[in-house]
Amino acid sequence: MIQPSTLPGMMELLPEDQLVFDTIKRKIEDVFIKNAFFSIDTPAIEKLDVLLSKGGGETSKQVFRIDNSKKNQGLRFDLTVPLAKYVSMYMQDLAFPFRRYQIAKVYRGERNQKGRYKEFYQCDIDIIGNEKLSLYNDAEIVKCMYEALKSIDVPEFEFQFNNRKILNGYFSYLGIDDFESCLRVIDKLDKIGIDNVKEELSKINLDASKIDTLLKFLEIDGTNQEIIEKLESLNIDNELFTCGVNELKFVYQDILSLGVNPENIKINLSITRGLDYYTGSVFETFFKDYREIGSICSGGRYDSLANNFTKSKLPGVGMSIGLTRLFYQLQELNLVKGKQTNFDCIIIPMKGYEKNAVKLMNDLRNSSVKCMSYLEDDKLKKKFNYADKLSVKYVIIIGQDEVEQNKFTLRNMENGNQELLELNEIIEKLK
Amino acid sequence: MIQPSTLPGMMELLPEDQLVFDTIKRKIEDVFIKNAFFSIDTPAIEKLDVLLSKGGGETSKQVFRIDNSKKNQGLRFDLTVPLAKYVSMYMQDLAFPFRRYQIAKVYRGERNQKGRYKEFYQCDIDIIGNEKLSLYNDAEIVKCMYEALKSIDVPEFEFQFNNRKILNGYFSYLGIDDFESCLRVIDKLDKIGIDNVKEELSKINLDASKIDTLLKFLEIDGTNQEIIEKLESLNIDNELFTCGVNELKFVYQDILSLGVNPENIKINLSITRGLDYYTGSVFETFFKDYREIGSICSGGRYDSLANNFTKSKLPGVGMSIGLTRLFYQLQELNLVKGKQTNFDCIIIPMKGYEKNAVKLMNDLRNSSVKCMSYLEDDKLKKKFNYADKLSVKYVIIIGQDEVEQNKFTLRNMENGNQELLELNEIIEKLK
Repeated sequence: MIQPSTLPGMMELLPEDQLVFDTIKRKIEDVFIKNAFFSIDTPAIEKLDVLLSKGGGETSKQVFRIDNSKKNQGLRFDLTVPLAKYVSMYMQDLAFPFRRYQIAKVYRGERNQKGRYKEFYQCDIDIIGNEKLSLYNDAEIVKCMYEALKSIDVPEFEFQFNNRKILNGYFSYLGIDDFESCLRVIDKLDKIGIDNVKEELSKINLDASKIDTLLKFLEIDGTNQEIIEKLESLNIDNELFTCGVNELKFVYQDILSLGVNPENIKINLSITRGLDYYTGSVFETFFKDYREIGSICSGGRYDSLANNFTKSKLPGVGMSIGLTRLFYQLQELNLVKGKQTNFDCIIIPMKGYEKNAVKLMNDLRNSSVKCMSYLEDDKLKKKFNYADKLSVKYVIIIGQDEVEQNKFTLRNMENGNQELLELNEIIEKLK
Repeated sequence: MIQPSTLPGMMELLPEDQLVFDTIKRKIEDVFIKNAFFSIDTPAIEKLDVLLSKGGGETSKQVFRIDNSKKNQGLRFDLTVPLAKYVSMYMQDLAFPFRRYQIAKVYRGERNQKGRYKEFYQCDIDIIGNEKLSLYNDAEIVKCMYEALKSIDVPEFEFQFNNRKILNGYFSYLGIDDFESCLRVIDKLDKIGIDNVKEELSKINLDASKIDTLLKFLEIDGTNQEIIEKLESLNIDNELFTCGVNELKFVYQDILSLGVNPENIKINLSITRGLDYYTGSVFETFFKDYREIGSICSGGRYDSLANNFTKSKLPGVGMSIGLTRLFYQLQELNLVKGKQTNFDCIIIPMKGYEKNAVKLMNDLRNSSVKCMSYLEDDKLKKKFNYADKLSVKYVIIIGQDEVEQNKFTLRNMENGNQELLELNEIIEKLK
C-alpha cells in the first residue's frame, strides 16, 4: 500500500472550491474572447535552450528539468517565453497585430512556503506588433483586464500605472548613470518606505541633492490630471522624459475613453516593474483595501518580445493575472464568492422506483434542468445526506404515491417545504 | 540567437485551428457539467511512487521524470491514477457516488511518430462508489459520452460494448485457465482477423475443439436483442457468465431508456479492453465509416479504483476521450468543422479617425458585438489584408464622410457589398 499524497506547493481543491475556481477561470477567458484575443495552447514541456533563451539567473534554477531527455527539456516557467517562441516560429502565418491569450499552468521550483505555488495558472493577454505597435493597444490591454477583474467580482481594485521612459528620462536628466540599481531601489518604495529608499540610494553613490530631487519627483501626487500637468510643468529638457509623459497622457486618456472608471486607475510614478524588460507603459493592480497582498495583475509595454529568437522587431504590450495565487489570497481573506454546486436538484427514488427516476432525470435534462438521480440501493436517510452534502437546493422524491398520481414531490432543502407537482410545473420551477 | 522550435510529438496549433480545438473541448466540458459531473484539477506533477503505484512495465518507461527532485517526481501519464490518489486522500470530504470529470493534458514519452503525441488531452468522466455502485452508472457514463460526441459534430459513431464477466465466465466454463493470454489474443480479433486469432490461440496450448467453440461464441451476432437472447439460450452453467449476461442486458436496456439511439450502440462479444483492470462493462467507440482509426472513446467498469492507496473498496465506471489524437484524426480526414474566427467584425478607421473607431468599438462591445479595431498607422490596403487574413465577415469603415453623416460603412467581406448604416442598425445586424 502506498500513502496517497500530493506534492507540496500544488493547489489541489475539493470539488466545491474547484467549481468556484473553474467559474472564475472561465469568466476571465470569456472576457478575453469577447475582446477579440486568440487562444494559443503551447506545450508545457519546451526545449531548455528555448526556455532559458534570456539567460540564466534565478529563473534557471527554478525550472523543472525533464530527466529522461538528455538534459535538454524542461517545464515552462511563464507564458511569455513560449509566446516569443510561438510568434517567432509562426510569423508568416500570423496576422499582426497578433492578439493572443493563454490561460495555462506554469511551473517554478519555489521553496515550500504558504501561499507559494510550484504549479500555478497564469492568465495572459498580449498584443504583438510586427516592427511597430500603436499606443492604443496599451489602453486596450488595461480595458480588457478591467473587464476581466470586474467579471469575477473581486474587491475594489486600482490599476496603478507609469511609463518607464519618464523615470529613465528623469535619471538621465539628473545625470544618474546607474539606472538599474536606481530602479531596483525605487521599486521597493512601496515595501520599505521613503526613508529606507533614501538610505539605499545613498549607498549606490547618489549624492544627497540628487536623492532629494528624485524623491521629491517620486512623491508627485494628486489626481491623474494634476500629475500629468505637474509633469508637463516641470519643463524637463530631455527627449525620453517628454516622450514618456506624452505616452502616459495618451494611454491614460485612451483608457478613459474605453470606458474604464477613473476610480479604478491611478498614475503612480514609483511603479517600475523592477528590472523586467518593459520599456514604456508599466501596470500593476492592487485591491484598494488589501494592498498588502501585492499586485494581482501586472504587465506593460516592451520593445522586443523575441530578440533571442528572431531578427524581426516584435514590440508588444501585455498583462497577466496570477490566478492560483489570487484565488489563494481571496480564500485567505474569505472573499471568494460563487456557487459551490453546479446543478439544481437530485432525484431520490423510493426503493423500486429507480427506473422512474431515470426517466424523470432524462425528461428534466432534456428541458435544460441540471440534475442527477441517486440510484444506489441505500436507506432514504443516506440518500438525503447525499443531497445535503452536495448543497443542492431541491430534491425530487418518487415513490408509490407520486407514481399513482403521475406527480412528483419537490422538496426545497433550504426551508423543508414540499409540494406535489406535475412534470411541467417542476420544469418551470427549476429551469 | 536561438532557433525557436517546439519539441516533436507536441500538438501546437495556429490560432484558427486552436479556436476549433478549444470550442470542441468546451462543448465536451459543458456536456460533462450538464450531466452533473464535478471538475477536479490535480497537478501535472505527482510523486513517482503515486504515479507508478500499479507497478512498472511499459508505463514506467514512458513517464517524464523530473530531474531536480531527487528522482521522486514525474508527470502524470493518465488521469486515472491522479483520480485514485485524489479519492483516497479526500474520501472523508467527498460525497459518494463521486461523479468527477477532468479534462487535462497527460504526458507519455512515446517514440516520435506521426499522429503520436507526447502531450495530449484526455477528457475523463468517472463515477466512483464507496463499497458499492449500481449498474445504472454504467449506462449514465455511456449516455454522457453519447451527448458529448453528438455535441461536437463528429461522424456517425457506434459504442461497442461487452461485459468482462461473460468472457471470463465462458473461459471458466470451457476449462481455459490462462484467461490473460486468451484475452490478449481475442483483443486483437479486430486487427488481425479470425484466422490469425485461431493460430495464436493454438500457440497458447488451447486444444482445437475449445478454439472452435470459443470462436463460434465470439462470432455470435445479430441485433443487440438477438445477441442477448442467444447468450441466454446457451444455458451455460456458470455463475460469472450468467451474472455478466444479466449485467449486459440491464446496462443495455438502461442505456436505451436514457435516450441513446439504438443505432449508436452495439454489443460486441470480442471487445475486451486488453488486460486493463476492467471487471464488468467494457466500452469502445468507433466511427462507423472510419473504423480503422480505432476507438475514440473507451472505458468500463472496475471493482477497485485505488487498492494501492486505500483499504476501502472503491468500485467505479468511467470513459475517456483522447481529444488530441481525435482532433488530429479528424484533421487528417478533413472532418474538422467549426468557425475559425471568434469575432464578427473589424473596425477600420481612415487616418485620423482612430478615436472614432475606439468609441465605436466600445459601443459595439457594450452591445455584445465581438469586434476589434485596427489602430495601427498603416495604408488602407494593409488594414483590409488584416481583415482578410482573420476571415472576419464584416469590416466597418470610418472616415470623414461617415463622421459627417454620423453613420458607418459596413462592408460584407464575403460578397463585397457596402451599406451606410447608423449605429443601431449595425448592432442589429451584427448582434
